[in-house]
Amino acid sequence: MGSAPPHDALLPLDPKTFAAESRPVIDFLSGYYRDVDKYAVRSAAAEPGRIRTLLPDTPPEHGDPVDVILEDVRRHIVPELTHWQSPNFFAYFPMNASTAGFAGEMLSTGLNVVPFAWAASPAATELEGVVVDWMCKLVGLPDRFLFSGGGGGVLHGSTCEAVVCTLAAARDRALSRLGHEAILRLVVYASDQSHSTFQKGARIIGIPPSNFRVIPTSAASGYGLTADSVQGVVEADVASGLVPLYLCATIGTTGVGAVDPVRQLGEVTRRHGMWLHVDAAYAGSALICPEFQDCIDGAELADSVSMNPHKWFLTNMDCCCLWVASPALLTSALSSNPEYLNNVSEGGADQVIDYKDWQIALSRPFRAMKLWVVLRRYGAAGMRAYIRRHVEMAKWFERTVSADERFEVVTPRRFSLVAFRLRPRHEGDHHAVDAMNRKLLVAINASGRVFMTHFVVDNKFVVRMAVGGAMTQMRHVQDAWELVKEKAKEVGALPTE
Amino acid sequence: MGSAPPHDALLPLDPKTFAAESRPVIDFLSGYYRDVDKYAVRSAAAEPGRIRTLLPDTPPEHGDPVDVILEDVRRHIVPELTHWQSPNFFAYFPMNASTAGFAGEMLSTGLNVVPFAWAASPAATELEGVVVDWMCKLVGLPDRFLFSGGGGGVLHGSTCEAVVCTLAAARDRALSRLGHEAILRLVVYASDQSHSTFQKGARIIGIPPSNFRVIPTSAASGYGLTADSVQGVVEADVASGLVPLYLCATIGTTGVGAVDPVRQLGEVTRRHGMWLHVDAAYAGSALICPEFQDCIDGAELADSVSMNPHKWFLTNMDCCCLWVASPALLTSALSSNPEYLNNVSEGGADQVIDYKDWQIALSRPFRAMKLWVVLRRYGAAGMRAYIRRHVEMAKWFERTVSADERFEVVTPRRFSLVAFRLRPRHEGDHHAVDAMNRKLLVAINASGRVFMTHFVVDNKFVVRMAVGGAMTQMRHVQDAWELVKEKAKEVGALPTE
Repeated sequence: MGSAPPHDALLPLDPKTFAAESRPVIDFLSGYYRDVDKYAVRSAAAEPGRIRTLLPDTPPEHGDPVDVILEDVRRHIVPELTHWQSPNFFAYFPMNASTAGFAGEMLSTGLNVVPFAWAASPAATELEGVVVDWMCKLVGLPDRFLFSGGGGGVLHGSTCEAVVCTLAAARDRALSRLGHEAILRLVVYASDQSHSTFQKGARIIGIPPSNFRVIPTSAASGYGLTADSVQGVVEADVASGLVPLYLCATIGTTGVGAVDPVRQLGEVTRRHGMWLHVDAAYAGSALICPEFQDCIDGAELADSVSMNPHKWFLTNMDCCCLWVASPALLTSALSSNPEYLNNVSEGGADQVIDYKDWQIALSRPFRAMKLWVVLRRYGAAGMRAYIRRHVEMAKWFERTVSADERFEVVTPRRFSLVAFRLRPRHEGDHHAVDAMNRKLLVAINASGRVFMTHFVVDNKFVVRMAVGGAMTQMRHVQDAWELVKEKAKEVGALPTE
Repeated sequence: MGSAPPHDALLPLDPKTFAAESRPVIDFLSGYYRDVDKYAVRSAAAEPGRIRTLLPDTPPEHGDPVDVILEDVRRHIVPELTHWQSPNFFAYFPMNASTAGFAGEMLSTGLNVVPFAWAASPAATELEGVVVDWMCKLVGLPDRFLFSGGGGGVLHGSTCEAVVCTLAAARDRALSRLGHEAILRLVVYASDQSHSTFQKGARIIGIPPSNFRVIPTSAASGYGLTADSVQGVVEADVASGLVPLYLCATIGTTGVGAVDPVRQLGEVTRRHGMWLHVDAAYAGSALICPEFQDCIDGAELADSVSMNPHKWFLTNMDCCCLWVASPALLTSALSSNPEYLNNVSEGGADQVIDYKDWQIALSRPFRAMKLWVVLRRYGAAGMRAYIRRHVEMAKWFERTVSADERFEVVTPRRFSLVAFRLRPRHEGDHHAVDAMNRKLLVAINASGRVFMTHFVVDNKFVVRMAVGGAMTQMRHVQDAWELVKEKAKEVGALPTE
């Protein structure tokens, strides 16, 4: 390591320096993983503006050695992180890190190639095509989403990017027929359980905010959309001269893990010439297990499907698979061919994929390497076992909560997310029970021993226990339950034991 | 390393396994940097579809050990990469990797936190605020882009994302006044040298394609926009009832490195209530040297500025700084507040930044760590020396090309990009000289010894020599010149020596 390099001889990729300065970072992270369960999952130290007071106002004029920088990370940064890799992190959805995902990201970051066009890095483009096909088969999607089936996939950074791109493709297909003025008449549909990404995405691509429909769901359908409700809203819009454009169906909603019926919804969207997108951001990982694949029955009626390996598939941030049935619709909305990207020496340009035309940005990282290393290192069988282990933990949690009469599970668990709450003791104490559940969650998180988040469904405040951390074992889930019971007592729920 | 873990005991973040499996990846990359100058910069082996034939059709059922995976990378992937980190890569723009950028990415990827909202990782959000302020000061932007000056910055993955977000902010500011129907009358302006990202971005946010204006530039202004030409086009649009929305000014265009006059353009945009974005994706790095800061004179008239540390600032892919003068305009176009992201225990939510509302996606990596480690490790002085070394190399190349009467430099070099060509020998052999330059570039790249790309300006085919690789030394630039001369002779340019 030693001191900062002299300025006139900065050798940023000297192989020996690279190895010598990278090893201590590996050791630092290895130590972090060893100790992460000892930190409060959400920092108690963090307060707005504090880090700014700890760091200088301007960048240093002269460089510091790596060990000094790592010591600052240890002292100033780590204590104020929320520890997403803690085995006791049950908030939001998991964001898995893994040894293989990290190795893949190291290779991608180290090679640092930019596969925006085939010629700009053939192997990176080709590997991406291979790996999205692998994932397509693994999650049980129909052949129409494979390159060999006329479709194809791409790796984005986020579902929101996938949504913006597919919305733009759907919009431009419609406007090429109707003229650009029709943008004012296009309507996008989602359920009251869909991710906020769809509303944001519709707004980004210029759909009038008043043309975004939020279709209510209910307990009767497990908070999934029904074909009838969609059909009703769509027909009303058609009757008023609007143009139904795009429906989002979700497999595993963020709030409670609900599943929309893809086949029935696909029949509605087909009838009205709409684009159907299936968002399986979280639960897409579970689809690699055949016992969950009934959830995507009817996917052949969809125009696009997305899922995030960076959530529950051991692929470090960020990585989102998007598959489309018709790549030409995507590329006709997103392609650009400036002169500085044309390649003078290249023949057969029409045989190759230029992934810049499948996404928003031109520059893009070599994400395929990361997902490929995960699949190679753990194998399909390893990944299925990994998913099933979390599902078993969630089943145990669901069963245990249900068996305690103070609590209720709000809607049946589908994957590894359990939405539960303290149940009302009598009719009519709706506000009181919400307030008590709110207090319960605050108390749980204030302990620092776990981190959970909440949702509001049917006007009920529910606590979300999202199992799926890379380090989470059954004992962590059991400890979480002990903590829930302890805090329930503290906030005044009557003991039953 | 050993064999694949048994499925029932996959421990993806076991600290010892993590360290043991990460070290060989470091050694692999160190070896890659040692050897990278021996590879053809663009693979000769690559052909469409070849990698697919080398890899199985489906993911493996069982995992492989790391050494087997690395061996496959070595055999199948590396030979078909374009080597962006080769010291002989002079194509497009540089995409720097560095030991510090890699260390920062390792920390970000290893900690794997997701700072979409302050509460989701306080330290990561706070560090991002600090580091964008540091960069703002370093590149000499006015205080209005600092948080303390009422503005602020964010780290995106790409300029295109920054463009889409600022376009959406400008659009929604206009539509909130004019009503959504006015989207059909909004006009976006760029020069014939602006990056294609602006046209793509305008299309993504729903601007009618016919409302995107490409304003011609000429040799007289060094291919920069003039205030007069913009003023003329804008006034014509206003006269036809259209609404001028957004102008892109570029510091260091992709084709030839041209610079638009920010102050004069800012006066035009202010007069017409338009949004002015300054794109310094490549040359923004040079702005850390005071001798280049005259390029951003007038930046106080801009609404937003962006630059990519992942190009020429030793920050591995991906990282784009976006600064805005009015964060409220950005967040009012991009915010979403679903229940599952609200934090029940948090007070003072209005004092904190939730970066999800400054960008397209919800999920986001901890990019601040990467840029912070680069600044800490190399310091401002180190970075300035690094930039100046490349500028000196480009100056040498420009001088040397100019001194050879067979060649001409097409427009004066501003940073580290030299646009040159074989010059016409007589009046009127326009097509012949273009064909010869085309042949020259093909011959240069076919050698595998360097990789350069081209541009067409004023109907002239020019070769772009983009200096700025992390490993590029003067001798690589000198070798490139020797190669250019050798290939010029081969394609029939008359020798002068």
